Amino acid sequence: MDGHAGIYCPSVRQIADSTVRRLSLYLRFLEELDGRRTTTVSSEALARLGGTTSAQVRKDLSLFGSFGTRGLGYAVSDLIEVLRDILGLDREWRVAIVGAGKIGLALANYGGFRQRGFRVVAVYDNDPAKIGGLWDGHHVRDVATMAGDVARERPDIAVVTVPAGSAQATADIIVSSGIKGILNFAPVKLRVPAGVTVRAVSMATELELLSYALAQRGLGAKGQA
Amino acid sequence: MDGHAGIYCPSVRQIADSTVRRLSLYLRFLEELDGRRTTTVSSEALARLGGTTSAQVRKDLSLFGSFGTRGLGYAVSDLIEVLRDILGLDREWRVAIVGAGKIGLALANYGGFRQRGFRVVAVYDNDPAKIGGLWDGHHVRDVATMAGDVARERPDIAVVTVPAGSAQATADIIVSSGIKGILNFAPVKLRVPAGVTVRAVSMATELELLSYALAQRGLGAKGQA
Repeated sequence: MDGHAGIYCPSVRQIADSTVRRLSLYLRFLEELDGRRTTTVSSEALARLGGTTSAQVRKDLSLFGSFGTRGLGYAVSDLIEVLRDILGLDREWRVAIVGAGKIGLALANYGGFRQRGFRVVAVYDNDPAKIGGLWDGHHVRDVATMAGDVARERPDIAVVTVPAGSAQATADIIVSSGIKGILNFAPVKLRVPAGVTVRAVSMATELELLSYALAQRGLGAKGQA
Repeated sequence: MDGHAGIYCPSVRQIADSTVRRLSLYLRFLEELDGRRTTTVSSEALARLGGTTSAQVRKDLSLFGSFGTRGLGYAVSDLIEVLRDILGLDREWRVAIVGAGKIGLALANYGGFRQRGFRVVAVYDNDPAKIGGLWDGHHVRDVATMAGDVARERPDIAVVTVPAGSAQATADIIVSSGIKGILNFAPVKLRVPAGVTVRAVSMATELELLSYALAQRGLGAKGQA
């Protein structure tokens, strides 16, 4: 019982990751339709792309209000606007990259990064050979100076692209500097206090989940890797 | 009841995704230790990096046999070998890239891709402007020729990096050509028959899960994106 005392949870926070993932898929599809000048879409068409049912689509969207006209479907541009608002894509996200390497560079140059309002405001490293150098037009700063910079520049998100061994120490610096969102590319599970949000992306892990599943079925040419 | 009839599930297949993700994290950490010439590691140290408990580490590893010596911990190089075997990294994975664009190129040039035994054997597109051109040293082929090629070249995995709108049609071609593993970068949930394994990676979705979580907490500068 104690664990629940004093915790205030507005219902909007209780939306599952799986729902947000579907909203993200719907938005992708709607943007593609909009690019082809399609103005309305049915819940059935959205369901097909989202790998779900039209009832699920209607339920997902009804969580955020009432859209769509019976028999006509959803107005594509209206629904894009609503989904962009829900997903926090109607604002600017100030990003600090921590780890001035290739992964961060690939991310910063990914078109969808800027398109979603993510803007790099600072780049850090702890390698003296990189500090002071240029990285995608930014001067690389010493990670030790981060706390002072954050008070001034107020990044919303830190992208962690340091090696596994220094990821937790880096996250500790980020958290103590006051940044509330972390996108973690290091293959380590970061420990952060409540109030800090972490999302993890590991290409290596995705590849290994696939090779694991296939190996279990006896696929692949053993001993040749 | 009918749904269960005739399905044979060896216990090894029932290992949860979350367990495989932890094994992948342990391997990352072990490889880093090995690079620093560390020869043994405790379950406590593995647990710290994996964001779990030492009891969980011992349980995870015991699923695949008995390793480790009480009081001494695990031999790093032995455990690397075992994990590489479990995760299917002890073999070659022949990969067909479908969609000769930037995402596939970033993946093919990601060091961890080759290091895990993933080798590009063919590249396809449906855009006449790209077919016949060079992509990372491979001649881009017409996706319509895929079925014939697969019988000859036997790729294990197809990487789907086509736009959302053509992803399902592309997956259908892949499946009918006989490929059993798909790594999907298109932001669409692919429908495939039983016996075909799909893993999905969407950078856009990961970014949106993060911006969603932060926006719900009132962060970000609204209206500036």
